Amino acid sequence: MSSASETTLEIPAGFRATAVKAGIKPSGGLDLAVIASDHPCAAAGTFTTNRVCAAPVRWDQALVPSDSIRAIVVNAGNANAATGAQGEANAAATATFAAEHLACLPQHVLVASTGVIGHQLPMDNLRDGLARALASLSGEAEQFAEAARAIMTTDTRPKVVSLRQDLDGRSTALLGLAKGAAMIGPRMATMLAFLVTDARVAPTDLQAILSEAVESTFNCISVEGHTSTNDTVLLLANGAAGGEPLQGEALAKFAASVQSTCQTLARMIPDDGEGATHLITIDVEGARDREEARTIARAVADSPLVKTAVAGADPNWGRIVSAAGYSGVPFEEQELSLWLNNTPLYRDGVPLNFDAAAVSAHLRAERETTIRLTLKRGSGSIRFWTCDLTAEYVRLNADYTT
Amino acid sequence: MSSASETTLEIPAGFRATAVKAGIKPSGGLDLAVIASDHPCAAAGTFTTNRVCAAPVRWDQALVPSDSIRAIVVNAGNANAATGAQGEANAAATATFAAEHLACLPQHVLVASTGVIGHQLPMDNLRDGLARALASLSGEAEQFAEAARAIMTTDTRPKVVSLRQDLDGRSTALLGLAKGAAMIGPRMATMLAFLVTDARVAPTDLQAILSEAVESTFNCISVEGHTSTNDTVLLLANGAAGGEPLQGEALAKFAASVQSTCQTLARMIPDDGEGATHLITIDVEGARDREEARTIARAVADSPLVKTAVAGADPNWGRIVSAAGYSGVPFEEQELSLWLNNTPLYRDGVPLNFDAAAVSAHLRAERETTIRLTLKRGSGSIRFWTCDLTAEYVRLNADYTT
Repeated sequence: MSSASETTLEIPAGFRATAVKAGIKPSGGLDLAVIASDHPCAAAGTFTTNRVCAAPVRWDQALVPSDSIRAIVVNAGNANAATGAQGEANAAATATFAAEHLACLPQHVLVASTGVIGHQLPMDNLRDGLARALASLSGEAEQFAEAARAIMTTDTRPKVVSLRQDLDGRSTALLGLAKGAAMIGPRMATMLAFLVTDARVAPTDLQAILSEAVESTFNCISVEGHTSTNDTVLLLANGAAGGEPLQGEALAKFAASVQSTCQTLARMIPDDGEGATHLITIDVEGARDREEARTIARAVADSPLVKTAVAGADPNWGRIVSAAGYSGVPFEEQELSLWLNNTPLYRDGVPLNFDAAAVSAHLRAERETTIRLTLKRGSGSIRFWTCDLTAEYVRLNADYTT
Repeated sequence: MSSASETTLEIPAGFRATAVKAGIKPSGGLDLAVIASDHPCAAAGTFTTNRVCAAPVRWDQALVPSDSIRAIVVNAGNANAATGAQGEANAAATATFAAEHLACLPQHVLVASTGVIGHQLPMDNLRDGLARALASLSGEAEQFAEAARAIMTTDTRPKVVSLRQDLDGRSTALLGLAKGAAMIGPRMATMLAFLVTDARVAPTDLQAILSEAVESTFNCISVEGHTSTNDTVLLLANGAAGGEPLQGEALAKFAASVQSTCQTLARMIPDDGEGATHLITIDVEGARDREEARTIARAVADSPLVKTAVAGADPNWGRIVSAAGYSGVPFEEQELSLWLNNTPLYRDGVPLNFDAAAVSAHLRAERETTIRLTLKRGSGSIRFWTCDLTAEYVRLNADYTT
């Protein structure tokens, strides 16, 4: 899998992209991206479960799965969330405007937004920018890299991956881009991520593959546990590689690639978490099922006390086991064991002797921290990613809008 | 209700207290307190629901409600949590040692601990300190104030309140002390708080009164949402004021005093939250019931994005409604309204125009922030307290043990 910096992105046939400065971000940077397909796409999506969900989320939810999507229009700098009926109208107007230029119906255009909540989109700027964007669509790799840059908010770097593989004897490409650095606590979906492929996949298969992939990737990350109003993951397959819809072994191979692409993108998000100095991987094993393991992992990932301890390279492991303890999973303390960076600290409810100075030095030296918790309730397990909590996170968020 | 600094604490008859330096805190400060009654007490308690619960919590849970409690022994500097069978033995040994000096049974002594998790209590220091403490018990107000100081960990000030009132024609006193500044996210209980009275109350009445009071006070606060392993609230009534057990109107008056004392103490905890610069009061109204209101209030209170916005005096109200949105309560966005410091910002799902500079200036000028959220689902409501999240909180917690 290649990353953006290698400039060797694999671009699925029949897709074009672009990014422009529409004047939505106060910074004046790139803030509007379009990804369009020359052919109608099978499309799948997963979305936030937040009851205050953004207008673009409602628009997309009504349209996927679909077999006729032509484009995704994404803006950063404004979430179009908590904006009432005016916000709904603005999302629809964005899709309608793009549809006119692409000679398709509004319901063939998906939209996504990210940025500050509770402000109406500046529609004059958006229409003007969108007209320029639609006139500059291109299949060059650089345009996809620019699109990944345009959807960033507080991200410090674009997040894009791609791969090429043969499916049913045909060469296909899969490309994914994502954004997110805070307000990350996905449940059933995540921040913005878009995957496009030229493989041919039936819409129902595409939705099943995406939903399963999201469960063990984007739904396994957290920066501070705040589930966004705008979480959206979309997967488009335009079939430009030719052939019949994938089935059997080729479909399974495609699903595995979607899974690995989602995992790579998901992990990039807490790794670029606001102010983060550590990427923390949490493995929970021996739970009754995957959901129980996720519940424990999420409680540990979202504990400010765990996150500050990692930031300070403080092996204060009691905070980890106590977070597991309040997760709501009714385990017995005597069945709980803990490893921190592979050092056993707590076994079957009993603290172990360990070299605190060495564990602290290791925490401080490595950007990656691993926490492993085991129970004896069953075979449910999960891998979850989060980041530490630093004073820089506080600084970044204490004055985001003002 | 009087506070410690006024030196006018009302001391219930028949209670004595003390505090010593036992060498449990690395700082060498006061770290061991005893509150004892000359007469057996009716006793009630509420405790953490954390599955990793401290040895002293297990000890007390087995004993209350009771009609024969003689003392509470509390240490700070070590939580005796996640300490296995050795921790259980140390809690029992502490009660047994105190019982010998007080000429009662071990099961007449309650114990509580707070501090770092996962370390065994230094029992030699504890026994030596306890012997000195038991020899210095006194009914002087200053001793109770010292006890409140001894149970502090990162608290910046002791938390103690008292009142005197006539019940059934007899003068009675109620005194409460508490500690807590972080790892505050109580569910069913809270950090350490101890209330003592010389009123005579039947144990079952006492337990019912305490449980109800805790539901709307200590269970309505949060610093960072991390439910502790050691949360304990105890209420002792030794009946030294004389008369029969309270009933009817006098019992109701007593219950109201317990409620107001718990509320005053509870509010002091986030007000002294680690690094806090704002005390935030969250009112949720129009929920289906109290639990639903609590669920929404807790989601808002525990959102690092809400807390950092308040710290930065940033009227970024979208974070508040989105936190309500992911709380799990299935409300409709069109029924949600929001006020920040009494300024309406969002009504029935539609953003309102407001003077952001004025709201920001008000947030910055006042230590107290009020958030009011209303739904249209029913008559359930709650008042919840939390504090903001500052870089100082991160600094304090990044190197707590090392």
